[in-house]
Amino acid sequence: MVNTGEKQSPHHVVIVGGGFGGLYAAKSLAGASVKVTLIDKRNFHLFQPLLYQVATGALSPADISSPLRSVLSKNKNTKVLLGEVNDIDPQAQKVFMGDEEIDYDSLILATGAKHSYFGKDDWEEFAPGLKTVEDAIQMRHRIFMAFEAAEKETDPEKRSRWLTFVIVGGGPTGVELAGAIAELAYRTLKEDFRNINTSETRVLLLEGLDRILPPFAAELSREAEISLSKLGVTVKPKALVTNIEDDIVTIKQGDEVTQIGAKTVLWAAGVKASPLGKVLAERTGVECDRAGRVIVEPDLSIKGYPNIFVIGDLAHFAHQNGKPLPGVAPVAMQQGEYVASVIKQKLNTQPLARFHYIDRGSLAVIGQNSAVVDLGFIKFTGFVAWLFWLLIHIYFLIEFDNKLLVMIQWGWNYFTHNRRARLITGKESLQNIASENSDNFYVKGKNTQAISV
Amino acid sequence: MVNTGEKQSPHHVVIVGGGFGGLYAAKSLAGASVKVTLIDKRNFHLFQPLLYQVATGALSPADISSPLRSVLSKNKNTKVLLGEVNDIDPQAQKVFMGDEEIDYDSLILATGAKHSYFGKDDWEEFAPGLKTVEDAIQMRHRIFMAFEAAEKETDPEKRSRWLTFVIVGGGPTGVELAGAIAELAYRTLKEDFRNINTSETRVLLLEGLDRILPPFAAELSREAEISLSKLGVTVKPKALVTNIEDDIVTIKQGDEVTQIGAKTVLWAAGVKASPLGKVLAERTGVECDRAGRVIVEPDLSIKGYPNIFVIGDLAHFAHQNGKPLPGVAPVAMQQGEYVASVIKQKLNTQPLARFHYIDRGSLAVIGQNSAVVDLGFIKFTGFVAWLFWLLIHIYFLIEFDNKLLVMIQWGWNYFTHNRRARLITGKESLQNIASENSDNFYVKGKNTQAISV
Repeated sequence: MVNTGEKQSPHHVVIVGGGFGGLYAAKSLAGASVKVTLIDKRNFHLFQPLLYQVATGALSPADISSPLRSVLSKNKNTKVLLGEVNDIDPQAQKVFMGDEEIDYDSLILATGAKHSYFGKDDWEEFAPGLKTVEDAIQMRHRIFMAFEAAEKETDPEKRSRWLTFVIVGGGPTGVELAGAIAELAYRTLKEDFRNINTSETRVLLLEGLDRILPPFAAELSREAEISLSKLGVTVKPKALVTNIEDDIVTIKQGDEVTQIGAKTVLWAAGVKASPLGKVLAERTGVECDRAGRVIVEPDLSIKGYPNIFVIGDLAHFAHQNGKPLPGVAPVAMQQGEYVASVIKQKLNTQPLARFHYIDRGSLAVIGQNSAVVDLGFIKFTGFVAWLFWLLIHIYFLIEFDNKLLVMIQWGWNYFTHNRRARLITGKESLQNIASENSDNFYVKGKNTQAISV
Repeated sequence: MVNTGEKQSPHHVVIVGGGFGGLYAAKSLAGASVKVTLIDKRNFHLFQPLLYQVATGALSPADISSPLRSVLSKNKNTKVLLGEVNDIDPQAQKVFMGDEEIDYDSLILATGAKHSYFGKDDWEEFAPGLKTVEDAIQMRHRIFMAFEAAEKETDPEKRSRWLTFVIVGGGPTGVELAGAIAELAYRTLKEDFRNINTSETRVLLLEGLDRILPPFAAELSREAEISLSKLGVTVKPKALVTNIEDDIVTIKQGDEVTQIGAKTVLWAAGVKASPLGKVLAERTGVECDRAGRVIVEPDLSIKGYPNIFVIGDLAHFAHQNGKPLPGVAPVAMQQGEYVASVIKQKLNTQPLARFHYIDRGSLAVIGQNSAVVDLGFIKFTGFVAWLFWLLIHIYFLIEFDNKLLVMIQWGWNYFTHNRRARLITGKESLQNIASENSDNFYVKGKNTQAISV
């Protein structure tokens, strides 16, 4: 469609998903002569890289969320709709939210991914993952409730299970969670209990491969492991989880099978793409990879449909070096901006360049004063890496919403070792801890859907 | 029991409830030669006077909560227990949490109050109250979801119902809620929607008596009403609510019956004491008033049991001027401190003074730059009153936990008119808004317990 300058209904871009990909696409279309509709099932953008800080009581959900309407209020060509897209008609150029339908000229799908249990969906009950605000609140609930239950437990064996935390998956999220829980147990909560000694807490980090942080250079993985050990985390590489039950995790390292008694198991291992990818595949015949990601063309459109784009964690883009791009925020942001420019260029009949991801490096935080940074041309660890991590995150946090508060809160936590957001909330599950038979209150809690706040 | 200085098990004070009363009692017993156990079903103290700011998206729950263990971590004679006391044996001097029992020498009950619908419990579904963090999150959900639903609604009559907010009860909470919703609609959200004009929002404040803020002097009620009108709130005095349904509130003013079409009704009218009061009455024969509050002696103990004390919103203390003391934080704090000193004095066989409440005045905030303050000897309104309100709240907030952040957040909101904590969360209820038949999604949301975060 060519912008002829004549009076006509403007080109309508529908963006599904307000994560990094969708939001950057919308922001990049701000001044363009298009009409934009951003659809999300949430009214806020979530800064997922910091979700582990909500899960461990350092920040509140609102600290890492920005209302989508407020972020886009100045974009007068943009409308935000709260709703969940569950179907697409690529021939009629429509998306559906239940009975409601919306026409599009260009469609950008950016609905991301959720955690995956590699087919062992029954593990979810015992080992929650971390993708949404609700996930983080449930994790926070479990972590803090575990210390409360240990404080009440008189049987030493059961008490030790309450004080054992197993994190499955040694990627950045797993490393960050393990480090944060260790700091919590050995520092923040040290003076708070009377019956238990929180320094008896065990934090185990399991990784299936031979080292943690596999996307980083090997020397950084080693540095990270040393830093985690100093914090008190036991790192177990080459550890395959073969079973997760109520309070036992079974792992296999080589031929050795070990059972770990642990009440709190946190899942930071696999992800799978949002179900909208499969729907798109059914409607268009496009292929998905094993994780459900949509295989995209060099310009991020899909085969046969040059006006449908898939970006971020939902996309499988392997045109750079044969390997699909990783599911990280910078990929999604760059893809969002790229697709916005493709649409603008098409309207002006300009030639297109294919998408090229500029990898500026990887970073992961381990604990206070400790992080690993791999920028390719330079690698560094320790305090400087931690400062670098801090600055990068503050930069991106304040980009669309002034998150000065997060910075102040971090400053405060840094000097006091305190964590303010340690609320255990949700009506039903709390009452169960009062009973001596507290072993299975998570199960009860789960049935009554008592997670909250 | 006299402290003879001989080696013996120390006097055990059990405090039930970590609100203002219980926490001040515990803090006052810090250095005393007693053992203290504080039991609460939550792991945090909630600064209830600011709960309306969570309900209207200005603060996060953690901003007004302090972990009880952290507040009391320096009190080495004090133990915190997470649990709910559901029975008392005053003869055996025990309290029960399910099967668990705890012996006491002195007992302080401070479990507070919850909202009450004067026997019309079916109204709760349509008109939630504001006592807990979950209540505030549910209110926040309803308020922000109403604007989202209005944005989607094409029928003008239905849209107007989504944009009508009715607050029942013209006490401080009702006034604060009404003012905050008006500021939200007319200021914060002004630029955020494309189909609706949020300045068409109607905010109605209903009060059964002839003026709002009845505990204040009449001229302050008048000033508050003028300030609310300027903000855009319609105040309806002498308005009795006779029915609340899904989207209709029926009121009676004199002989006139009016039906108001409103999707969002918030309850700020009545409270009743926590059920532990009734349990105590059954076990000891002590009397309760109509609101379920325990009638206490001049020293806040109960008749026949000099070692059982009832304080705060759970207590009915009418020894000062015949009228029971109001259910406000200063009463609870002073009673907590008083009971702590009674217990210490008893142990030292010192004479006791009866409890005397020092009323330092009442204050309520109406909106930005506007509040009413009644100190008895002086009354003032407007900006100076608002500053005074701010200082008092900051003073008490930082007393046990450094809540510098709240101050900074307020500063930020003040200059930007923004409200950061505008998250709509909870999985199930959100999906329903996508369907055109969005009229009854609250009911669905309620059934699936989808409130959270």
